[in-house]
Parts: sequence; C-alpha cells; structure tokens
Amino acid sequence: MPQQALSDLKVVEYGDFISAPYCGKLLADLGAEVIKVEPPGTGDSSRRYGPFPNDEPDTERSLLYAYMNTNKLGISLDVQSPLGKKIFKALLQQADVLIENYPPKFMHELGLDHESLHSANPGLIVTSITSFGQSGQYRDYKGTDLISFHMGGIGYPTSGDVDDPDNYPPLKGPGHQADIMAAITGAAAAMSALMARRMDGVGRHVDISEQEALVRAIGGPIVSHVSRGETPNRIAGMDRPISGRKPLRAKDGYFSAQMLMDQFWPSMKKVLGYPEWAEQDVFNDRTTRSQNIEVVTAHVEEWAKDYTTAEVFQILQVENHIPCLPVNTMEDVFTHPHFIERGTFVQMEHPDIGTFQAPGPPYDFSLTPWQIKGPAPRLGQHNGEIMCSRLGYSKEELVKMKQLGVI
Amino acid sequence: MPQQALSDLKVVEYGDFISAPYCGKLLADLGAEVIKVEPPGTGDSSRRYGPFPNDEPDTERSLLYAYMNTNKLGISLDVQSPLGKKIFKALLQQADVLIENYPPKFMHELGLDHESLHSANPGLIVTSITSFGQSGQYRDYKGTDLISFHMGGIGYPTSGDVDDPDNYPPLKGPGHQADIMAAITGAAAAMSALMARRMDGVGRHVDISEQEALVRAIGGPIVSHVSRGETPNRIAGMDRPISGRKPLRAKDGYFSAQMLMDQFWPSMKKVLGYPEWAEQDVFNDRTTRSQNIEVVTAHVEEWAKDYTTAEVFQILQVENHIPCLPVNTMEDVFTHPHFIERGTFVQMEHPDIGTFQAPGPPYDFSLTPWQIKGPAPRLGQHNGEIMCSRLGYSKEELVKMKQLGVI
Repeated sequence: MPQQALSDLKVVEYGDFISAPYCGKLLADLGAEVIKVEPPGTGDSSRRYGPFPNDEPDTERSLLYAYMNTNKLGISLDVQSPLGKKIFKALLQQADVLIENYPPKFMHELGLDHESLHSANPGLIVTSITSFGQSGQYRDYKGTDLISFHMGGIGYPTSGDVDDPDNYPPLKGPGHQADIMAAITGAAAAMSALMARRMDGVGRHVDISEQEALVRAIGGPIVSHVSRGETPNRIAGMDRPISGRKPLRAKDGYFSAQMLMDQFWPSMKKVLGYPEWAEQDVFNDRTTRSQNIEVVTAHVEEWAKDYTTAEVFQILQVENHIPCLPVNTMEDVFTHPHFIERGTFVQMEHPDIGTFQAPGPPYDFSLTPWQIKGPAPRLGQHNGEIMCSRLGYSKEELVKMKQLGVI
Repeated sequence: MPQQALSDLKVVEYGDFISAPYCGKLLADLGAEVIKVEPPGTGDSSRRYGPFPNDEPDTERSLLYAYMNTNKLGISLDVQSPLGKKIFKALLQQADVLIENYPPKFMHELGLDHESLHSANPGLIVTSITSFGQSGQYRDYKGTDLISFHMGGIGYPTSGDVDDPDNYPPLKGPGHQADIMAAITGAAAAMSALMARRMDGVGRHVDISEQEALVRAIGGPIVSHVSRGETPNRIAGMDRPISGRKPLRAKDGYFSAQMLMDQFWPSMKKVLGYPEWAEQDVFNDRTTRSQNIEVVTAHVEEWAKDYTTAEVFQILQVENHIPCLPVNTMEDVFTHPHFIERGTFVQMEHPDIGTFQAPGPPYDFSLTPWQIKGPAPRLGQHNGEIMCSRLGYSKEELVKMKQLGVI
C-alpha cells in the first residue's frame, strides 16, 4: 500500500455532528491518523441522526455517522472529568493538530483553551470551528446550519424572485452547507498552519466561523454590496435579473444555458437561426443584453419547447460549445455516466451496516490518492488500543475507567 | 513585518474569473508569492465585470477583479505563442504550485498538461480547477456557476417548497458558490499535496471539479439519497418538512430557531409557557416532533407575533440558550456589531479605485496572520520585474515582446 499524502500527521478530533468531523474526515481520508474523541454513552450526535437502514434508529448504524467518520480511530472519553481531561491532554502531547467545535467559553472553562494547550504542546495546531468564531460578542452563542445561513445574509436572497416577500419567507439551500464549507475551510487553514509551522516550529490557533465561511461563498456579488452598500433583492443572482440566472424549460424538463457572455452569443444566434430581434444592438452588448435578458430568455424557451433537455444539451453544448446542461435531480446525479466514470460516489463497507453508497474524494491527487481504509469506529472501539498501547494504562485501569464512566 | 504563513511558497496562477483566482488569493493573502498570468490586451474576464465605481466600466477599476487578486504580482503573457509558452515554462521552473482553470484538452494541446509540466519540474504541484474535473466524458465541456449548481443536483431542491414544481423552475443560491467552493477545496488540496511532497519531493496533479465540490456541500442528506436511492423533494431541508427548516415570522421580520433538537426543547416549552399541547408525547420525541413540526412552527409563530426579531433573539438565544437569530439581509451583515468586532469585512486601497470594502480573512490564525500587503495588479504591471529581474530578459526584448503582442 503506498504511503498516503498525510501519513505522518497525527490529529485528535474533539468535535460533534458535521463541521469538525467532516474536517477530520478530510485529513483521515488522505492518511492522517485521526483519533475521534466521543462522550461515553451517547457518542457523537450524528449517531442519532438518520438515515438508518430500514429506518430503524441504531447509534451504531447511522449512515451519516458512518460517512463522516471513515478512516478514524474512535475512543470514548469524558473530557469534563479530571481523569478524562488528563488522558485528553496526554493524547494532545502526541498530536500535530486538534480539531474541535465547542463554544470558546466551554473550552476555556475546561482549561482546554488554546493558550493552555499551547503551553503544554507548543507545536500543536488548534483548529476551532464554531458558529460565530473565537472573537466578537456572539462567540458563545449557539448556532445551527440554518442560523449560519441567515446570520451570514446568504439566506435572505435564496428564496428566488418572489412576488410577495413579506409573506414568502427566506429559505436556505439544501443540506448542511455552512458546516461543510467551514470544514473545508478548516482543512485548508490547518494545512496552511502546518506549512507555517515548518518555518518556526510553533503551533497556531486557527479560527473558523461557520457563517463567515458561508458568507464568503457568495463570492463576487458580495463585493458589490459591501462596496456600494446596496441591499440585494431577493433574486437568485443578487446582482442581475433572475431570469438570466434560472434554468429554462424544454419539452421535458429544465436546462441551464449561458446567454450573457459575449463569447457564446454568436453561437446562440446561430442556433436560434439568426432571428431579426437578435441582430438589434441592444442584444449584442453584454450589458444591455443582461438588462433585457427576459426577452432573450423568452425566445430561447420558445425555441427549446420542441426539444428534450437531452436534445438541447446536444445542440448547445456538444455541437455549438455553448455552456449548457440539463438540470439534474439527485437521482440523475447518482446515475450520471460522467460521475460514474469519475468515481464521484463510492461503495463503503461497515460491519454493522453492510454496503452503502457515499460521496467519494472531495479532492484527489496523483501518487498518493484518497483511500477508504476502514469504516467509522463503533463508540469506544479503539479505547484499548489508544489507552493501553499508546498511553500505557493497564487493562485493569481501563475496566475502572469504564466503571467510573470516564470512557 | 512578521513573516507570513506561506512566505516561502511560489505560485503561478493561470486562471480566469473566480475559481482559480480565488484559490490564488487564498494563498497570496497568507504570504505566498502568486504571479498571475493574464492574456495581453484583454486580461482576466473579471476585469469586465462589475461592480465599477459610478457604474462606469473600466478594466482597471473592476471591484470584483480588485477583490479577487489582492496581494498578487501580475504579468500579461500570450501563453499560446511560442515565446509566451517558453516564458511560462521558465516561470514554472521556479514555482511550487501552478493553479489553472482551463479545459484539460486546451492545456494538453498547449503542451501544458500535467505530464509535460511534471517532466520539466518534478516537484511542481498542478492544481486544476474545472467545471467537470480532469476525467470523465464531460471533462472538456464548458460550465458556469449556474450549470455546476444544476449538474451537481443541488439546484433542484433549492427553490423551496413550491406548489407547482412543473411551472416553478429550480433556482440556484446567490453568487458564485460553485466557484468559491472549488477554490477553497483547491487550496486545501494544494496544501495537502505540499505536505505530501515533504515526504518524497514529488509534485502532484490536484483534480478539482466545481460541481463535485458543490454537490459535497450538501453534506448529510446526500448520504441518504446515495444510500437509499431516494429523490429528494424540492424542499429546503431535503430530508424533512421545510417548515422545520425555514425561518419564522415575528412582528417585524423573520428569525431562525432550533425546535427539533431534544436538548433545547425543554427551554422552548418554558418560553412558550408550558402549553398543554406541548406536553403531549408526540412533541417530546425528536422524531415525532419533526414529523409534526408544522404544528410546533404554528405555535411558535403565534407566540412570536407580539415580539420583534430583536426581542425574540433576546428571549430565546440570550436568556434561554436556544439557537436563534434574526434573518439578516446583506445590509444587516455589513453593519452587524459582531462582524465589525471580528473584522469580517475590511477596507482595501487601490490606486485606480480608491478605498473600497471587501470580505476579510476566510480563515485566520495566530502569529502569522492574514494580511493585505498590496492591491490587485494592473494588467501587465509586473512584466518588467518578472521578465527582466527574474527571468533575465533585457528591456529591449521586453519592448519587442510588447510589439509582438506576446505580453
């Protein structure tokens, strides 16, 4: 087996649910040793979230947990007990990176704030992923993915062009985007901190705020609003009419096509048969075409009504090199030949679950590729291996820890 | 000035618009030397996108370009010309990382595919960020942020719970989320590849697909659909009724609150005054409460109609520690005291633009912090510095390159 990209990295993960666990998974899947620390008895809260096989709740059969925690070692440990804290600190003595997602106040009261950890292990990189970050007046407030979406302002324009905003609430995107965005941001930051440590041997405190990570995902338009103080309308594109940014109807479904960029406009006119309206100056300049995009959209939909989305794709993208794709449902995604060829989704094995499908590598590279080496751990599965072989506790001490509820 | 985290890293960016440029910015803002290579005459296409000061288009005053390209050196170079390609390859001889976002076929035809570059500089890490990735039958197709949104399936459920899906098109989230997600994923991957290179001295080809980066942002629910073959409804949360995942109305606006998790439910009942309905078993178990969330929502909205969102925040979050926040517009975000305290947005200076506001650090850490050292370059601003001082061309040769359109 080839050595993996991060084989020499030792990580402790004291995180719950998605943000810190997904950050840990990103490193574990590239070969880092990640020891996941879970509260005894209950474990990570994702163990109680579905989906479960046959919809039967079982803390050892949560697909969400199984996906988020592949390739990790798992121990149960009550970090709030004196002995648990001692063991936790001993683990951190041997670690390069701690990933955690608890409120700063909680970590401080436990004596596990960055300053205390840094004085014990000056090389340790502490990656803290929280709803609101390590500073500012909201730092100890509780948040969720939904809250991050709306604190960061990205939720407000997400519901699309509604006729009656007062009575149609702002929504959020599907899934756990703030958590995942924060996790990837955390991985980039932790890796950058490791690069910095090469120069001076000193660890860093990495501060990731979930809602800041998400608000930056807006990208370009945010600059417009920051710099000009404009409040965006509740439109999908924020800075332009929604009709240029929403999919169009074909005979059997929706497709997206690029109608704004000048480089593709001549081809689009060709596809439409060089109609008279399209030759007017107003439609041959990106800015004015954008201002009149609803006219363009109506014409393109009129053309598309005789074609299936597959035919539209063939004509626009394949034959005329105009960016265009049918709108995929999740089902379309899982059965799409391009994704199958790329291994976008992979089969995973888990002793309590069997085989299940999950997303494959979020990034991959040559030589030392992404790898699934082992399933997510059962709660406390590696207690013996870590406590005895690694930290030198005896089997008798392990039994006593169990009786005391420390593990 | 303290050394920065990535001060010893040399990066060449041959990218356009947002994905590769934002990836380059993430490294430049932490101190990496990033040389941005733009086509002579036209430059990066973000130069032609707004916003512009006073809405007057000017390729040297695009705020989008100015934000995406801070801290970089900029040269103009026609990489498709023989001399341009020679200069480009000479630059790469001295680089640790190349970031690019052109179709694989284009790079291959130019002789700038990973294999060719790797044989010239075996330590070079090539980070390729494209719509569909380096493999699979769609690899050379053109995409946009809108297309990535719908190819990855995340757009389909984004429009919310619509009554008439056939006549209400799927939408997308605001801004350039696929581009930004791919950029951060690219930064994490490039940093991981650098960590791997420490072990064997060999560069890697990093393969980032924009729509794959985005589809993973869905997080948890995707596992449900991959593993069970379910097609999600067009609901905001995908795996649960939208009413538990959408903001609620208060007297003067919307707020988000956590009503599902068991740990916060006793406090919510207390806030509501322990009403009779809430004591029924069906509302005291997470699963059945979730199934009946519309009843809960209606009661919470009934309670909230007498309070402003600020009062709701005070009562739920501050006094009762229930995750809760008002829904912010972008304007609320820019004036929010928490963001101001954290420096979430910063002032930037640009010689042609003046002062403008832009997002600050996406991740920050102690000791060697994020820094704006210089503005985005004018087109070809560092041609002399790079071509003459770095690569040894004479001023006469530089003049000739300009005449030939190579720079």
